[in-house]
Amino acid sequence: MTEKPSRKDWKSKLHEVIYGTHTPAGKMFDIVLLVVILYSVIIVMLESDSRFDEKFHGFLNISEWIVTILFTIEYILRIICIKSPRKYVFSFFGIIDFLSTIPKYLSLFIMGSQYVAAFRALRLLRVFRILKLVRFIGESNNLVRALRASRTKILVFVFFVLIVSVLLGTIMYLVEGPEHGFNSIPHSVYWTIVTLTTVGYGDISPQTGLGQFIATFIMIVGYGIIAVPTGIVSAEYASSNRKNKDSKKKDKSCAECGTVILKEDAHYCRVCGFRLIED
Amino acid sequence: MTEKPSRKDWKSKLHEVIYGTHTPAGKMFDIVLLVVILYSVIIVMLESDSRFDEKFHGFLNISEWIVTILFTIEYILRIICIKSPRKYVFSFFGIIDFLSTIPKYLSLFIMGSQYVAAFRALRLLRVFRILKLVRFIGESNNLVRALRASRTKILVFVFFVLIVSVLLGTIMYLVEGPEHGFNSIPHSVYWTIVTLTTVGYGDISPQTGLGQFIATFIMIVGYGIIAVPTGIVSAEYASSNRKNKDSKKKDKSCAECGTVILKEDAHYCRVCGFRLIED
Amino acid sequence: MTEKPSRKDWKSKLHEVIYGTHTPAGKMFDIVLLVVILYSVIIVMLESDSRFDEKFHGFLNISEWIVTILFTIEYILRIICIKSPRKYVFSFFGIIDFLSTIPKYLSLFIMGSQYVAAFRALRLLRVFRILKLVRFIGESNNLVRALRASRTKILVFVFFVLIVSVLLGTIMYLVEGPEHGFNSIPHSVYWTIVTLTTVGYGDISPQTGLGQFIATFIMIVGYGIIAVPTGIVSAEYASSNRKNKDSKKKDKSCAECGTVILKEDAHYCRVCGFRLIED
Amino acid sequence: MTEKPSRKDWKSKLHEVIYGTHTPAGKMFDIVLLVVILYSVIIVMLESDSRFDEKFHGFLNISEWIVTILFTIEYILRIICIKSPRKYVFSFFGIIDFLSTIPKYLSLFIMGSQYVAAFRALRLLRVFRILKLVRFIGESNNLVRALRASRTKILVFVFFVLIVSVLLGTIMYLVEGPEHGFNSIPHSVYWTIVTLTTVGYGDISPQTGLGQFIATFIMIVGYGIIAVPTGIVSAEYASSNRKNKDSKKKDKSCAECGTVILKEDAHYCRVCGFRLIED
Repeated sequence: MTEKPSRKDWKSKLHEVIYGTHTPAGKMFDIVLLVVILYSVIIVMLESDSRFDEKFHGFLNISEWIVTILFTIEYILRIICIKSPRKYVFSFFGIIDFLSTIPKYLSLFIMGSQYVAAFRALRLLRVFRILKLVRFIGESNNLVRALRASRTKILVFVFFVLIVSVLLGTIMYLVEGPEHGFNSIPHSVYWTIVTLTTVGYGDISPQTGLGQFIATFIMIVGYGIIAVPTGIVSAEYASSNRKNKDSKKKDKSCAECGTVILKEDAHYCRVCGFRLIED
Repeated sequence: MTEKPSRKDWKSKLHEVIYGTHTPAGKMFDIVLLVVILYSVIIVMLESDSRFDEKFHGFLNISEWIVTILFTIEYILRIICIKSPRKYVFSFFGIIDFLSTIPKYLSLFIMGSQYVAAFRALRLLRVFRILKLVRFIGESNNLVRALRASRTKILVFVFFVLIVSVLLGTIMYLVEGPEHGFNSIPHSVYWTIVTLTTVGYGDISPQTGLGQFIATFIMIVGYGIIAVPTGIVSAEYASSNRKNKDSKKKDKSCAECGTVILKEDAHYCRVCGFRLIED
Repeated sequence: MTEKPSRKDWKSKLHEVIYGTHTPAGKMFDIVLLVVILYSVIIVMLESDSRFDEKFHGFLNISEWIVTILFTIEYILRIICIKSPRKYVFSFFGIIDFLSTIPKYLSLFIMGSQYVAAFRALRLLRVFRILKLVRFIGESNNLVRALRASRTKILVFVFFVLIVSVLLGTIMYLVEGPEHGFNSIPHSVYWTIVTLTTVGYGDISPQTGLGQFIATFIMIVGYGIIAVPTGIVSAEYASSNRKNKDSKKKDKSCAECGTVILKEDAHYCRVCGFRLIED
Repeated sequence: MTEKPSRKDWKSKLHEVIYGTHTPAGKMFDIVLLVVILYSVIIVMLESDSRFDEKFHGFLNISEWIVTILFTIEYILRIICIKSPRKYVFSFFGIIDFLSTIPKYLSLFIMGSQYVAAFRALRLLRVFRILKLVRFIGESNNLVRALRASRTKILVFVFFVLIVSVLLGTIMYLVEGPEHGFNSIPHSVYWTIVTLTTVGYGDISPQTGLGQFIATFIMIVGYGIIAVPTGIVSAEYASSNRKNKDSKKKDKSCAECGTVILKEDAHYCRVCGFRLIED
């Protein structure tokens, strides 16, 4: 009978469907999972809107249960079909997957009305389900490389911006003071960053002439220094792009016989005829 | 008699005027069309201002009819003088041209007062006439190429920004809550994107110290990641620019005899003396 | 007697002082002029502040007269010592210089109290004096070249942004409507541009869920397309920078005998020993 | 006895700990200093919040004294163990270190209630301690070089932006006037810069149709010119990056025998076998 595969076969097939993305079933599983995650995130978001929650409480509750059960089944299957369940459970996605299923179950045992608010907070953790989406990002290695290369420089830059913000915030606190909404230095530093990053809420804004003059200065400085991280990333990205092309040219060699491929547009090894794998 | 050309001649001449841009008549037609489109869009915009509409209702109505009739004539002429009218009618510009003429005619048949709101929307469809102007954007192939090359990367980036926004929005909802204007998670995510993109309306702004601290963090992150799409487009555009120059050098060949032109500053083919066409 | 130079000498010396910048006297004249212009602009700005004007009206009035007389003398001298006064009078700076002197004199003849407001407007034209400052910008030829090279592309881009703004503004007008502050399509387009450019005043902001959703979309689009002009200018500037270096290398040749200079660090022609002029 | 080193030894060891960063003790000293600086800045910031200061005044006061004494000890040790104390005292960091210790001591002598405001400002000087952190920014020489190279261009650019702001601000003052919040030209120029830098507080915003039209124009101009400093820094940074690589290639030579190293991946001199120092 074909319906009774050996246990190992059954497991490895399941593994291919759940963790793999190359078979049609694996792709289908990923797409269905993606849709369910998005659906569950939308449910949590709508639930937080009190007007919406009042109207459709029953529907949202049932949706929540269906999603929770689906995620529970997925979580169990993931543990069953992987070689080292321990490694998965304590991995980044293992923890996210666990946190995605637990809040609804906890709502059954913790029932005191005074815990509802705190419990709601726990439920919101399920929004982290969306981090599962990161799995589907396989693009942009160049981008990641460029960001990694400019990481230190951008950190130094952010650090420098923070120092400048503390100094300018203190000056603005002295100039404007609590009577114009600059209640304390931290509040004033908050305003400085709001201005420097060109966000500009307008919940606090300078009222005195001197304060507006300094604000103008801060804005122009912010306008100038916004160029710095952009410049870094642009240059690193361009350089990473160029390197990538160069290394592609150099590294391309037949996986079968090792012959270095000279023609860029070659699809088969000129020595052994092996089909070349594209990077 | 010269005034009675064969039908085919008449059609191809009209085609040259309407679709072509090289003859003086074709250029004139394009300029007149440009002016009429701009005029019609301004009419629609002014009509939406109730104070203006009250004062100049008659003038706006007559202008609208004139523009509609002109666009109808243009639409009919375009169908007559093209080889495959079906292809034009269902093309992007064919649909835009049709939608630009129809709303005013519909206003004659749909007159019930209960349809006013829906009808209003229909009338505003005429704003899409502005898309007719896209025809006149013929510049910047490099730009389009650069944007196309960076499309996937920018989509992945936007996707990532959205995930981050949902997470940060949820945290801000928990920290600030409905009592400080963060009514629901979607509302809070809206605020996060307003902050992350450095728009900063200020209709909602964090009130608690912790909320302002997180807002500061979001702003600096936004400041940093604004560099990413800029970096991508810069690098792709520069690379597309360079490729373009290289390909220009390579591809330059005599249109008459096919000889490859080696000297960049050559204006005549060195083999057959044919005048070289500049790209 | 040395104090009585020929008329021509006196004129050419004056010309050197006023129009030239190479002699010590010419430099001094430019610096003094710069200071007086800045001072006059500050006076006009302070005069517009009603509280300040009440307190220091006498001082401001006298300052105004001194500046006006100085500028009049300068204007007359400029006309006297130039070869073709007509050309100067109708040049950009000639008109600016004239507009800088005239408003104060006009205030003597036009005295009706009802004209005061309009007259004030005329006086404000003197702010254009500041355009005289443009004379001192001799830097950044590369920058100018890069901006010129990217001019058409940026215009096309701005044109495209305007089309998108009209469409999105119309959609927002339909979604939010006059009851949420989107009074008319032009007002709504204004809001769209405020959002798209990440300015975000917050004088109008979307109130409905759908409106906020579309606003979010507009912001992310704005975030993405801010990359386009930056990318263009970066690439053009880098390319203009490179070209400049290349052309410097190529063009360097002895001004005396025409020998092409091969070594970059040469200061004297290797053939005739002529001192090479640096670019 | 090993515990009694010569005075010179003791001094040079201390110098290594305080000024050096290569020994474990030196690293530890830097980390402890970093923590104390951050702690002291947070104390000053919290002290400015009147609610917080009321509750924890005693704790903040004691913390302040501890930090002041630690900084005093550090300052004295730095003077003792350096070769030329005079040079240190009048250096940038020497002045910052002095200003970091003095305010708390001054608070003992200046006690009259009428000096409270001035004294408050004096106490806030301690925020400048944060400049001590600049010591820890040792990264990004390329960045500094790129910024230095683009300094003049960015200054010219800022100067140009200021001229444009004064002109546009004057026009907006004439269009909107004091009745719509544009009280004076300086105030109007402030608004123009708020708009041009895309900060957009919304404390003042145009009310008339013409004002909104001009505001739209200003925003799009701002959107366009934000590209300029970014383009400059990007290009300069990329060029500085490239130069750096070229000079690395050229300059690499054996520190022992002076042989120029041709192969990039060489770790030992091919002539004398000396281990090459990486830059």
